[in-house]
Amino acid sequence: MKKVFKWAANVVMTVFLMGCPLGVWSQHKEVCIALHGGAGNISKEEITEAEQKAYCEKMEEALKAGHQVLTKGGSSVEAVETAIRVLEDSPLFNAGKGAVYTADGTIELDASVMCGKSLKAGAVAGVTNIRNPISAAVRVMTQTAHVMLIGKGAEAFAAAQKLDTVSQEYFYTEKRWQQYLNRKEKGEIITDDKQVVFGTVGVVAMDMEGNLAAGTSTGGMSYKKHGRVGDSPIIGAGTYADNRYGAVSCTGHGEFFIRNVVAYDIIALKAYKGWPVQKAARYVINDKLKKLNAEGGVICIDNKGRITAAFNTSAMFRGYINKKGEMKTEIF
Amino acid sequence: MKKVFKWAANVVMTVFLMGCPLGVWSQHKEVCIALHGGAGNISKEEITEAEQKAYCEKMEEALKAGHQVLTKGGSSVEAVETAIRVLEDSPLFNAGKGAVYTADGTIELDASVMCGKSLKAGAVAGVTNIRNPISAAVRVMTQTAHVMLIGKGAEAFAAAQKLDTVSQEYFYTEKRWQQYLNRKEKGEIITDDKQVVFGTVGVVAMDMEGNLAAGTSTGGMSYKKHGRVGDSPIIGAGTYADNRYGAVSCTGHGEFFIRNVVAYDIIALKAYKGWPVQKAARYVINDKLKKLNAEGGVICIDNKGRITAAFNTSAMFRGYINKKGEMKTEIF
Repeated sequence: MKKVFKWAANVVMTVFLMGCPLGVWSQHKEVCIALHGGAGNISKEEITEAEQKAYCEKMEEALKAGHQVLTKGGSSVEAVETAIRVLEDSPLFNAGKGAVYTADGTIELDASVMCGKSLKAGAVAGVTNIRNPISAAVRVMTQTAHVMLIGKGAEAFAAAQKLDTVSQEYFYTEKRWQQYLNRKEKGEIITDDKQVVFGTVGVVAMDMEGNLAAGTSTGGMSYKKHGRVGDSPIIGAGTYADNRYGAVSCTGHGEFFIRNVVAYDIIALKAYKGWPVQKAARYVINDKLKKLNAEGGVICIDNKGRITAAFNTSAMFRGYINKKGEMKTEIF
Repeated sequence: MKKVFKWAANVVMTVFLMGCPLGVWSQHKEVCIALHGGAGNISKEEITEAEQKAYCEKMEEALKAGHQVLTKGGSSVEAVETAIRVLEDSPLFNAGKGAVYTADGTIELDASVMCGKSLKAGAVAGVTNIRNPISAAVRVMTQTAHVMLIGKGAEAFAAAQKLDTVSQEYFYTEKRWQQYLNRKEKGEIITDDKQVVFGTVGVVAMDMEGNLAAGTSTGGMSYKKHGRVGDSPIIGAGTYADNRYGAVSCTGHGEFFIRNVVAYDIIALKAYKGWPVQKAARYVINDKLKKLNAEGGVICIDNKGRITAAFNTSAMFRGYINKKGEMKTEIF
């Protein structure tokens, strides 16, 4: 009997020792990531199959890039930055390359990031020459005592950090320029234009340590007034992350998202009412904002790594790789 | 007996009919207003009695100006704007005239306002030539579809609205310039400097209709990085108002106030946990922020017109005129 016990103890110890370096016993080895590429009212007929395929492929590329960071043991903040850079570098989305034009025919970009472990955050707004605003937001968070830098000050900081700077021509895309010219002819801001709302990008992620992060990047509202800032760079409105509750990134009609502090509101409903993040997200987007005719959506990961997408428009570009490693991208 | 009854009925009817036009029967004839002029760690020995008197007199002037708007039937937004303009025009406070200098030796101002009835809001950040940033924030709220305008775009808008514009020299005060030169010699940001935190101004008010409003205005952190924005112009962080719950204006170490979405957090605790605003404000300031070594304070008016001030520093310039018309100003 003693021999059997000793043998069993040895087996248990061997499995334990082999498992440790592989992270088998770690509480949070599972990682996950989710993203959105903007929400808007667009029907299946208004976007060709080839276009749908292009959007989904780019979202998959971003998801895989972020997921790889996570599976290699990188932080959720690094994963968020990596995935958003892929979307910023694509002309498909209204962030970085492919951003929409202001009423003055210029490009002004906003981005923010938040770390759910430290509750630290970084943001830039109204920047015109930073290739990847999300990286500038990360540097504000990690390299300064501040949360938000705007305009020329943010650009000087990004240059000092040796981030890629580009001319306004870099951001040019034929599609956005034609949208701008069309709108200029009409001479007004059309906030319900499909192409206006579509495009802000955001990523939420959970890393091996169970740490959450959220990030958002945008070119803002098409034909916006010079200097207009939406919810994307506003911590609490467009972006929020807290390890105890969840991580949230928003997209939609920014002014309503600011007034309703949407990202933090979802967190507060979980923190103070004990609602699951999924219920909170659906309530805020499909009830509270819907009643205000405020269009948009959110993606969330809660403190258990459960992924939620909620939107009150007909479509939201979105995708995820869940804890099981399953990948999915959707538009409608 | 019948005659006596008839006589009594006539008296009651006469009083009722006389009272109506005077608003005697209106549910919300009572008005109130509260303000802060910044919070910081300063002892009674560090500020002369003459200085204390000057601060209190200016706060009284602002309170009376805002209160007069309210008693004449003006809106809470008008009262907030009026009172903050008095503080912005005074060299005593770190807002408008008297603002602190950035590390570059320039002045960059931020302000925001929110209407608790409509949940509309307005904000400007990083503006350099607008005499009264709070008025620009009000115009953003009432004259545009946007919430936030920054930098040159905000300045162009203010000029188009015919708001007073001034040169940077207008903002010069000997005290602030000497603070700047001293700090420049040391070559660093000193966030715990008494004179750094002191000075942001904010006002909350309830008008005859029972509508709440909140506003905040600041020169930001002394010797801040060019382009740095704190919580004052961030809806949810530095300012929030919702008729159903309360109105809040914050002052303190802005980065912590942004990360903790302080103004909206107080509202959320009332909305989702049913806490009185006073309990919520004290919890957020004296417990949550205190644990993070985050210094600052808030003033609030709840949906019943009850006034609260909470601060975790040794002092906060503050004052109120309550529903009974009683005025009080305090520092320690």
